[in-house]
Amino acid sequence: MLLILHPNTKDDDPSYKETMTFLQALPGIAHRVHKVQGQQQQLTEIYLIGDTHTLEKDQIETLPAVERVVRIADEYRVLGRHKDSDLVTGFTYNGVDFTQDSFHLFAGLCAVDNPKHVEEMLRVLQDNGQQCTRMGAYKPRTNPYSFQGHGDSCLPYVFELAGKYGIKVVAMEVTHEAHIEEIDAALEQTGRPTGVMLQIGTRNTQNFELLKSIGKQQTYPALLKRGFGITLNESLNAAEYLASEGNSQVIFCLRGMKSSFGAPHRNMVDFTHVPVVKRLTRMPVCIDPSHSVGTREVAPDNIMDVAHATAQGIIAGANMVLVDFHPDPPTALVDGPQALLLEELPAFLADVRLVRETYLKRGAIWGG
Amino acid sequence: MLLILHPNTKDDDPSYKETMTFLQALPGIAHRVHKVQGQQQQLTEIYLIGDTHTLEKDQIETLPAVERVVRIADEYRVLGRHKDSDLVTGFTYNGVDFTQDSFHLFAGLCAVDNPKHVEEMLRVLQDNGQQCTRMGAYKPRTNPYSFQGHGDSCLPYVFELAGKYGIKVVAMEVTHEAHIEEIDAALEQTGRPTGVMLQIGTRNTQNFELLKSIGKQQTYPALLKRGFGITLNESLNAAEYLASEGNSQVIFCLRGMKSSFGAPHRNMVDFTHVPVVKRLTRMPVCIDPSHSVGTREVAPDNIMDVAHATAQGIIAGANMVLVDFHPDPPTALVDGPQALLLEELPAFLADVRLVRETYLKRGAIWGG
Amino acid sequence: MLLILHPNTKDDDPSYKETMTFLQALPGIAHRVHKVQGQQQQLTEIYLIGDTHTLEKDQIETLPAVERVVRIADEYRVLGRHKDSDLVTGFTYNGVDFTQDSFHLFAGLCAVDNPKHVEEMLRVLQDNGQQCTRMGAYKPRTNPYSFQGHGDSCLPYVFELAGKYGIKVVAMEVTHEAHIEEIDAALEQTGRPTGVMLQIGTRNTQNFELLKSIGKQQTYPALLKRGFGITLNESLNAAEYLASEGNSQVIFCLRGMKSSFGAPHRNMVDFTHVPVVKRLTRMPVCIDPSHSVGTREVAPDNIMDVAHATAQGIIAGANMVLVDFHPDPPTALVDGPQALLLEELPAFLADVRLVRETYLKRGAIWGG
Amino acid sequence: MLLILHPNTKDDDPSYKETMTFLQALPGIAHRVHKVQGQQQQLTEIYLIGDTHTLEKDQIETLPAVERVVRIADEYRVLGRHKDSDLVTGFTYNGVDFTQDSFHLFAGLCAVDNPKHVEEMLRVLQDNGQQCTRMGAYKPRTNPYSFQGHGDSCLPYVFELAGKYGIKVVAMEVTHEAHIEEIDAALEQTGRPTGVMLQIGTRNTQNFELLKSIGKQQTYPALLKRGFGITLNESLNAAEYLASEGNSQVIFCLRGMKSSFGAPHRNMVDFTHVPVVKRLTRMPVCIDPSHSVGTREVAPDNIMDVAHATAQGIIAGANMVLVDFHPDPPTALVDGPQALLLEELPAFLADVRLVRETYLKRGAIWGG
Repeated sequence: MLLILHPNTKDDDPSYKETMTFLQALPGIAHRVHKVQGQQQQLTEIYLIGDTHTLEKDQIETLPAVERVVRIADEYRVLGRHKDSDLVTGFTYNGVDFTQDSFHLFAGLCAVDNPKHVEEMLRVLQDNGQQCTRMGAYKPRTNPYSFQGHGDSCLPYVFELAGKYGIKVVAMEVTHEAHIEEIDAALEQTGRPTGVMLQIGTRNTQNFELLKSIGKQQTYPALLKRGFGITLNESLNAAEYLASEGNSQVIFCLRGMKSSFGAPHRNMVDFTHVPVVKRLTRMPVCIDPSHSVGTREVAPDNIMDVAHATAQGIIAGANMVLVDFHPDPPTALVDGPQALLLEELPAFLADVRLVRETYLKRGAIWGG
Repeated sequence: MLLILHPNTKDDDPSYKETMTFLQALPGIAHRVHKVQGQQQQLTEIYLIGDTHTLEKDQIETLPAVERVVRIADEYRVLGRHKDSDLVTGFTYNGVDFTQDSFHLFAGLCAVDNPKHVEEMLRVLQDNGQQCTRMGAYKPRTNPYSFQGHGDSCLPYVFELAGKYGIKVVAMEVTHEAHIEEIDAALEQTGRPTGVMLQIGTRNTQNFELLKSIGKQQTYPALLKRGFGITLNESLNAAEYLASEGNSQVIFCLRGMKSSFGAPHRNMVDFTHVPVVKRLTRMPVCIDPSHSVGTREVAPDNIMDVAHATAQGIIAGANMVLVDFHPDPPTALVDGPQALLLEELPAFLADVRLVRETYLKRGAIWGG
Repeated sequence: MLLILHPNTKDDDPSYKETMTFLQALPGIAHRVHKVQGQQQQLTEIYLIGDTHTLEKDQIETLPAVERVVRIADEYRVLGRHKDSDLVTGFTYNGVDFTQDSFHLFAGLCAVDNPKHVEEMLRVLQDNGQQCTRMGAYKPRTNPYSFQGHGDSCLPYVFELAGKYGIKVVAMEVTHEAHIEEIDAALEQTGRPTGVMLQIGTRNTQNFELLKSIGKQQTYPALLKRGFGITLNESLNAAEYLASEGNSQVIFCLRGMKSSFGAPHRNMVDFTHVPVVKRLTRMPVCIDPSHSVGTREVAPDNIMDVAHATAQGIIAGANMVLVDFHPDPPTALVDGPQALLLEELPAFLADVRLVRETYLKRGAIWGG
Repeated sequence: MLLILHPNTKDDDPSYKETMTFLQALPGIAHRVHKVQGQQQQLTEIYLIGDTHTLEKDQIETLPAVERVVRIADEYRVLGRHKDSDLVTGFTYNGVDFTQDSFHLFAGLCAVDNPKHVEEMLRVLQDNGQQCTRMGAYKPRTNPYSFQGHGDSCLPYVFELAGKYGIKVVAMEVTHEAHIEEIDAALEQTGRPTGVMLQIGTRNTQNFELLKSIGKQQTYPALLKRGFGITLNESLNAAEYLASEGNSQVIFCLRGMKSSFGAPHRNMVDFTHVPVVKRLTRMPVCIDPSHSVGTREVAPDNIMDVAHATAQGIIAGANMVLVDFHPDPPTALVDGPQALLLEELPAFLADVRLVRETYLKRGAIWGG
């Protein structure tokens, strides 16, 4: 059972205290409080867990802080959409709105290699009006003897440069709970010039201990990549791990599935699931065309497959795009062959904007 | 080795005869002649098969009927794109152009059930300016005890009604070579009021004997569905079976892959391969969103998943869309749950046109 | 509803005629008669199809020719095992017993290349006490330009040599209904020196028209290979196509699934389904280790992977093994790399026998 | 480059010191030392990493502590088999030998529920002469609201009871590096009455941080389960992560792959890869029939599918079997439906022994 409180209810409001006192007295029922920061207001949701079917919905709705009560199914309790409810989607982080209606491009480096490349990348982003980027410091690699990323040694200059070029959110993969502390320390040390979105890679989608660690903090939002070898349901349950620990600022990222059916692409692109994830959950949906497609091949219409895949995600309503660029792909330490060139950013952006506009027009056709 | 003759070369031209005499005298080399009907002219291509590496390209180009010679790789000899060549794509059938630049919608009934429903469907198509449709008479079913389609008994009224409502091409699945004759007989009997495109279903993609039968005739073009459990390369080789027997009027149809990764959709949608097939081969590319998605579920943006999948195929350059409609889905004998309603056709068409226009604009951005 | 008649009931027995008269008078109920030739007796089964739930089981059991009545579920009507029934499994063909308790090795040539190799193969089989073999005349190939088998031109010498060396059953793939006639003609022409089991390859598992053709004749039993890209349930339904047309002399063959999980083997071996198929249906179960594994690699225990896979199938109760040998693998026209050498047959046979004996002992442990 | 030292070389032997001094002086070359405890002697292997192709094999072999030098490929440097080498396989832990020639059964509880069931399980194992078991304390679950195991609270009684009933090795899954410390503390607290093998589950096969943590300690050996959605090569690389950090006491466990082809089994059984893993690496190979098959279904031969799968792994040379038993499956908190009953252990053991003996006899046939 989900209780949605009146907007901007505060912890020390008498209505809140009275409500909590009542809930704490319920036998055999635990509760979890989720706070979601929207642009205009803060929303508080309380999940009652346990034997809730004996509770009367009407009675709970009379509690002073409660605006509405929703009975929820077992699956995706926090992040799911539930029948007859019109729950808020997404969140605001560092002044940037992430909802099922927003749209942001996160172009950047798959793996940070040196300050020069980072700066070149960020300068081009600023020149093109971007305020988000992706930067990889910790790289999980299949082979133990491959380059594993520069780790926390590169964080200070990445964050400083991000601040210098007006970047508000850096998406960055973490593979161990210690990385959260390292990121936090580096941000603190550099004066918090930018924000960070913690990215969980496809090999860690079911690393439940890592999910719990990220779920326990609420400083940084999370970007969870879909597991490349498990069902959509299993990946959505993994997102719920983050939320069940208290962090519901979660974006879900489609990145292609491991299947021989995808060849000659690196993975089998799964962006037809964009509307599915939006229907099943309240999460904004991201797509990662670079890792899905994995090549710079061009079709006879002169458009790269990676641009086609991007368009396919956006035309179906994707809220965020993660895409690899590099100032000098041949020298990139990881995944160079799939990176776009800095000089391709303007055309890529023009394409992205055209298709996003078309998506919005489609909504008008269908009465959305 | 591929010889492209001068346009409109005829079989009784002296230049053609002289050329053929030369080719027939080459030891250990067989040849196959392909004629492609374009809108303005007829093209003849001759494939030399065997130990062709001893032939001099320059010498062959001096033959009187030959315009150009292309050395081709082993794969997809007839239907493939070959380096340094700018071969024509597609064909014209019954006055309708099918190329990698054209676009047509084939809305219709998955399975013909009765004349009333066929007529209702066709009338709506005509009202909406359509000249193509899909109509299933022969239905291969997984369970031997399920309805298997009305077979040739329904052909006369389907063709007559198609003619009455101005339909020029009916896509129709065949599962046995005898069906080609049945279709031909029914068309003959009804005065050829319409044309037929022979469709090969996903369970028969590697039914090489059926492919050879369809490849041996050139009256009807073929629509080959991708095999749902094999690689793209294997399915493209199946298309080449059609062409190797003499029929290169082939359209390749993406229809989703069998994979647990696709759920909750019926299949895992593979439309990111639209540009791939256009790059590897000269075939126009069709998409089948109905069988891929398999539901009428609607996303929070009020757009059905099947419309999203359609848009994803078109935004990446699909040349043809096969989509199931039905006047009364609950009574449909096959795949009712995925059929769109007749009253949904106008919005569907408006969506399709908007996205197709956007695709063409994307080409301008990328200099295509 | 399934009616099992008294053993050796003949078509002109009065009890049979009376029973049929009664059944024909049942409104809305069709019936199909299946005859199974066992070693000792002939069994007749009659399937009632339609609205049978209004029929009284007791009443039908009083019909003079009827020994027992079994209510059956919808799936696998003819070939399935049905609750509370103890139906006979398998059949006898050309004096050879094929049941869920029998065991036979079918070693032979994947593709017939010339009479010399066929004779060498058959001589070694006779020397080692074998009476079955596999011989491929019609080869479906992914690439249309690959060798497609010698077809019916090789049939006469294959059958004559089979007879000469005491072979009773030759398993042979067919890909078109015309091949059945060609085989029948060649057998007739050579005096029927041997028998043939018609094999349906994995690419034709859902070629329902071919299945119907083979199902309509009862001269030759069928060996249906599992489809390499569909579920087990779908492949078992394909077997039911054969039976629904009247031929229930069907053996089901596991041959590995197409999956990237199988590498470095050619396919992902699926022999753990041997007991599953025996539980769900009445078909004897064959395994094809050669195509599953696809290599001659040897483990550190000096045993080839293909021998290990064979042992895995037999230890779980496989009734038949299809395995590729060749007198000179490097010159084999198809799949040479996976063929065993003639001189390896004795060890292979010793291994097979040891493991089969162990399987039988396992039954004693578990009280089977 | 791999240097194998003379057996029983000790760290303070002059020959060892001299060798190390030489190696440390090599420019651009790092080294990693691996010690493997065999039953008779301790072996030391030193891996040279970096630009080793300039080193002379002959020269290195003259170093006083070095017995032999092997040039190794890049893949599976530590755990791989390398050409022209005859490296030792496996290790000895707590008096129990684990090699590619050994065989051990690990029957036990998937998830520890209470002391009574643990004791009942262990008593039956002792009665049947077993010295190994599996016991799950930390359970990673797909749904965050499912039972997650009793964690470290159950460790003291599990270890004490294991000691009481003569168990030498308990296989136990860990999902976080902290669990290693918890296990170590509980063993210490209870007087180390038994040993523990750290198990890494299929969802963590590519949790490289966890692998590194386990690889960094050498107190406990590791049992790595194959990832259920990645290639074999990727899973073997994950094993190499353990070894690259210093712990080469690794057993590799096949446990079935996630694929719709496996139904009606829970996973698609992959035990045909037993000989493959033994060929590619030096690891002993374990099979987990319980999680692969996931049911207690019985074939017409009265043998459960899980027993058939077990036999299939053993007949191909498996060195270890992990199998779920439970005193009262209906009350089991996790995976009850697949657990065998305690009274089924004797038959299961008899079956296992019979098949293992047969495997050894097969080796004689093939000259292994």
